[in-house]
This record gives sequence, structure tokens and C-alpha cells, in this order.
Amino acid sequence: MNIESFTPPRRTLMGPGPSDISPAVLQAQSRPIVGHLDPLFIKMMDEIKLLLQYAFQTENPHTFAVSAPGSAGMETCFVNLVEPGDKVVVCINGVFGQRMLENVERCGGEAVVVEDEWGQAVSVDKVAAALEQHSDAKFVAFVHAETSTGVASDAQALCALAKRHGCLTIVDSVTSLGGIPLKVDEWGIDAIYSGSQKCLSCVPGISPVSFSPAAVEKLKARKSKVQSWFLDQTLVMGYWSGEQKRSYHHTAPVTALYALHESLLQLYKEGLENAWARHAAMHQELKAGLDKLGLTLTVDEAIRLPQLNLIAIPEGLDDAAVRKQLLEDYNLEIGAGLGKFAGKAWRIGLMGYAARKENIALCLAALAKVIQQ
Amino acid sequence: MNIESFTPPRRTLMGPGPSDISPAVLQAQSRPIVGHLDPLFIKMMDEIKLLLQYAFQTENPHTFAVSAPGSAGMETCFVNLVEPGDKVVVCINGVFGQRMLENVERCGGEAVVVEDEWGQAVSVDKVAAALEQHSDAKFVAFVHAETSTGVASDAQALCALAKRHGCLTIVDSVTSLGGIPLKVDEWGIDAIYSGSQKCLSCVPGISPVSFSPAAVEKLKARKSKVQSWFLDQTLVMGYWSGEQKRSYHHTAPVTALYALHESLLQLYKEGLENAWARHAAMHQELKAGLDKLGLTLTVDEAIRLPQLNLIAIPEGLDDAAVRKQLLEDYNLEIGAGLGKFAGKAWRIGLMGYAARKENIALCLAALAKVIQQ
Repeated sequence: MNIESFTPPRRTLMGPGPSDISPAVLQAQSRPIVGHLDPLFIKMMDEIKLLLQYAFQTENPHTFAVSAPGSAGMETCFVNLVEPGDKVVVCINGVFGQRMLENVERCGGEAVVVEDEWGQAVSVDKVAAALEQHSDAKFVAFVHAETSTGVASDAQALCALAKRHGCLTIVDSVTSLGGIPLKVDEWGIDAIYSGSQKCLSCVPGISPVSFSPAAVEKLKARKSKVQSWFLDQTLVMGYWSGEQKRSYHHTAPVTALYALHESLLQLYKEGLENAWARHAAMHQELKAGLDKLGLTLTVDEAIRLPQLNLIAIPEGLDDAAVRKQLLEDYNLEIGAGLGKFAGKAWRIGLMGYAARKENIALCLAALAKVIQQ
Repeated sequence: MNIESFTPPRRTLMGPGPSDISPAVLQAQSRPIVGHLDPLFIKMMDEIKLLLQYAFQTENPHTFAVSAPGSAGMETCFVNLVEPGDKVVVCINGVFGQRMLENVERCGGEAVVVEDEWGQAVSVDKVAAALEQHSDAKFVAFVHAETSTGVASDAQALCALAKRHGCLTIVDSVTSLGGIPLKVDEWGIDAIYSGSQKCLSCVPGISPVSFSPAAVEKLKARKSKVQSWFLDQTLVMGYWSGEQKRSYHHTAPVTALYALHESLLQLYKEGLENAWARHAAMHQELKAGLDKLGLTLTVDEAIRLPQLNLIAIPEGLDDAAVRKQLLEDYNLEIGAGLGKFAGKAWRIGLMGYAARKENIALCLAALAKVIQQ
């Protein structure tokens, strides 16, 4: 075999994730490895919990990081909380709502699907109607920020509605955490997961998760074992929690957690409100430039995510060829459309460390060159 | 909150994993991030597959890395292959055999347990007897190198036996891969998983996995969906394989895979046989030094793992105090005993990059100072 060490070029990542990583986070990741039960490492994990509580705006003691990507964070919420036969209202307005449905079904839950068009927010009215009709529903599950469509749904209203019907909420915040307002305790979210590689600008592969006391109670009252050993929170928490000795569950991804610690610390130092404001401001800057290029955003302003912008691909342009040229000539990655938007839209991410003026300037200049050829 | 960046000291890791990481691997991990669908990254993933095929000594096309730790690799094998009602002979001679049993039960499989004492190898005779008695068994599952006890079992004999009874084999090679001879195709292993953080000396958090064509056939013939969406191989392989376009499944842990690529490349350059010989030689060097200190290995020579050495803790010594002093005064981590060996044995790992003369010299010198006080 003729294989050499992998030496990637410096790309600018403005797709739907992974996003650009700051030098400080990459550097943190390459510090010397310590054991996953080292007292210094355990202390760092405790700090990660505090920093995650801040990022999620929660006091949930059950707040930690799953040792796997956001999809595993999603699965963590469903397999631990949904028992066979539990009825779950699942809101679908894009790829990730669909994935929630897959999870519900694979846990043996009974799904009540509330569908909205791709590019629209989850309809609070439709969810209300579903809850009226299914008074035995135990959960409402929805995606706060749909990565496939660039749409924000009203998490606060959906959670308030779910509470009025006695339901627990399971919320996907993979793309929202750190990018737009998200207040777990104030909004009454019961189970939430996110990803490391979006607005946290950390390396991919880690999924922050938080469970409310009510969710923990539901978990503790389970009649059957959690179907996944790896994601079983009753076991994992022996490692992430406890005043006494931490017990071994699995070997934590030590260096990825160094990176998460550093990225969360940077978010804390910047301040959540400032981070949200920065994403909003950079979105405006991008939009102004796109307007000048005659490119239009596909999502209505009221429900548009500042950190993930869907751009309608103008007629006559070759989607893949444009992205290929941006990558090859400018080392710039933008995202393809997903699902119903494949070939019809590009996704330009302004997430975390990528939400900077220099990235926007590059992106607009490169796009201008490539599409005006 | 008063939280600073995490700046760990340089530890020498001689526990049961994570093991020492070479500077080249740590450096590879901190290279600039690229997208998980970037053509350069896809090419690197293809190289990882080739390098893993070499490490596993297999031509299985279904060879790749699970985006999560070894425990998730274990779960990948069980949830994909074992269907509800399938009978599985599970061999238990330590912690990880026990974990296999948990997995079988959580998939709805029917376990036939073959137990051997901790510190003993899996008895081929007992497995033969179990297979005679349960002619409808579909799988034999066992741990090649038990990390909790430092014992090697005869994977070749167990696989040959399983084949004679028409069973597929599921093999844990978390601690064996790269450290002792392991030949997936020659021995007829059907499903195997490992970990990145043992003898591969890569960062923790990734689990190499390989399925034989017979295992893939069993997967494809499933009547029910795989209960885990995240680990469902029928979906994951759309990302890791295929001549055509790779389809998005989850966001791969990009930088951890850089590290895996580099660590596998180093193993390839050293050569498997040389790596096995180095582990054996370093074990002899450690043993000679332990003999001089009057410390004894707990495992019989014939079944002893060179890369993971269980040392009986001499009477009168305080297990935790010794390990604490090694860590604090010498930045040296050795492992505690697990399960039945807690408080009774230390585990000294000589894995991958940790299997070097300088580490052994430090370990012996530090142990001498601490235990002879």
C-alpha cells in the first residue's frame, strides 16, 4: 500500500457542520493525554458539566456529554425515556424530525406524527390538535433548529403547550445551541441534545445532553432495561456524576473532551447573549452581500436561522460544479441541500468560530466569481 | 465560574488504556479540519479501511471505524447481528464477557452462558459442550484478550469450533488488535470490534469493526430493523462504502479519524509481526524487572497477555495509595484491578507506543521507590 500521512489543506468551513474550529480549541485537543479516571480529568469533566449547564441555561444535574456524535445524543434521549408502547408526538419538518421518528419506532414507542412542510416551522396549532386528540401522549419531540431547512421552531411555545398536556419534551438543539436563544429551564425542556461541531465550533464526535428532574424520574421508573448498553444513562452517570468514586463505564474520548472544554470556555467568556448577537449580526452581513449578488434566502425572515442560511440555487447553475469550484479554487466548503432541497438550495453556515467577517467576505467574493463566470 | 483552560501535565500512561500516544498521532489530530464529505476526507476514510483490513488481517469489504468507543463497537456487532430469539453462546471470564451478555439480553437474544474463572482462558471444552447441548445456537461470542484479567483466549480454536457447529463468531479484540497475533480471515472470525486507545495508541473514542460476508448476509436477512439507528450498519455503510456518492449518515469525528489514520499507518510501517514481537519483548523486559522487585504476575504464562500485565499487590501495601503516589510523584499511571481483582492486582499496560524501554525503566524505578518505602 502506498499511503502517506494525511495533510489536509486549510479549508474554510461554511457548510452545515462541522464548522471552523478556533486554533485554541484545536490546540487544546492536542495536549498530552491523561487517563479517563485521572483526578485532573475528572475535575475537567466537572467543569464541562458547569459550562454545559451555562450553555443550555439549566441547573439540571443530569447534564453531560455523550461520547459520540449528535445522532447518538438523539438516541440517548429516546432510548432512555421512551418505553415500549409510550405515545410520542413527533414533529417533522425536515430530515432530523424524520430521524426522531425512526428513533421512536426503534424503541417500540407509538408515534403520532405532526408534519409540516420542509422550510416551515413546526405548527404549534397542529401539535395542539394532536395533543387534544391523543390525551395519552407522554412526549412531544421536535427539532429546535432544522439543519436540513434552516428553520427555527418556537421551542418555548411548544414546550409550554406540551406541559399543559402533561407531556415531557425531547428537543434537538444540534444547530441551535450557542447560535440562537435557548433556555432549557425557563422554557421547561425535559430532554435536550446537541452536537459539538456546530455553533460550539468544537471537533465533531461529542453530543451534549441534559435531562430535567422529571425526565430523570421517568428514566428511574422504567419497567424494562434501556435497550442500549452504551447509552444507558443509569450506567453512564456512574462515571459522569457522584460525590464518591467515579466508576468505569467506557473509555471517554479524552482529547475530544479537552476540545469541548475549551470551546465551552470560549463561549462562556464571550457570553451567550453576545454569541447570539454575533450570529445575528453576521447573518445580516451575509444577507446584505447575497442581496447584492441577486441570491435569495429560501426561508421566511421570521423563522430563519441566522447560523444556517439556505440559498436558492439560481436557474441554470450546476449545484455540484459550483461547490466543487469553491472547494478546489478557494478551499471554501458550503453545504449541499439535503432531502427535498437537494440540488435546489445551498446551505451556508455561520456557526461559532465560522461566524466572522473574514469568512463572509471570502464567501461572498468567491461566490461572486464562481457564479458570474 | 472560575474556570481556566485545561493544561494537563505529561503523564506516562501504563494502565489498561488509554495508552500513550505518539507525538505524530497527536499532531495528526490537530491538523486543520475538513468537512466529513470532503473528497480528500473520503479518500482518507478509504485508506483507513485498507489499513484496518491490514491490521485485522482480513479482506472483508465491511471493515470500518464506528464513531464511538469500543463499547459502541461491541454494541454494533450485537445489535446488527443478533435478532430477537437468536441463541448466543456467550463466554464470560471477566468484565467484558459480562458486558457481551448484557448486550445479548438487550437485543432480545437468548444467551447460553459459558463461564470460566476470572484469570482463566475461555475453556474450549466447555464451549464445545454448550454447542453440543444447544444445536440451535447461532453465535459464539467471546473476548480474545480480557482487559480485566490480562488473559488471552484461543480465538483460533474457538472460531474453528463455532464453525463446525454452524455458528457465527463475535469477537472482542479491544486489547488484542496490534498487540498479539490476530488473523480474522485465517481464523474465520465473523464479527470483530476493537478500540482505538489500546495497542493502536490512538486517541480514545473510535472502534474499528469488521464483518465477514457471512455476517453481512445475516444482517441483510434480518426480519426486524436494527434497534439502534446510530449503529445500524445498513445505513452507516452508505457513508463508509460505495463506488458512487457517499450519503450522509452522521457527522464523522473528523479529527479523531485523522489520528486513527496516522496510528494505523505507523502500525503498517512497523509491520504487524514486528509490533507483536515488540510487545512480547517488552513484556519479558517488564517481567524480569518485576521478578527482581519480588512482584508476581497473576496469570499463567501460557495465557498471559504481553500487553496487559496483572501484578498481585503484595500484602500490606495500600493499593490506592501506591497508585496515587506513582501518579503524583512520577506522573505515571498504572491501572487498578477491575471487578474481582479490585484491590488485589494492578494492571500494567504495555500497549502500542507505551511498549517502550523508557516506559518500563520508569515504571520499575518508580515502583521500586514507592513500594520499598
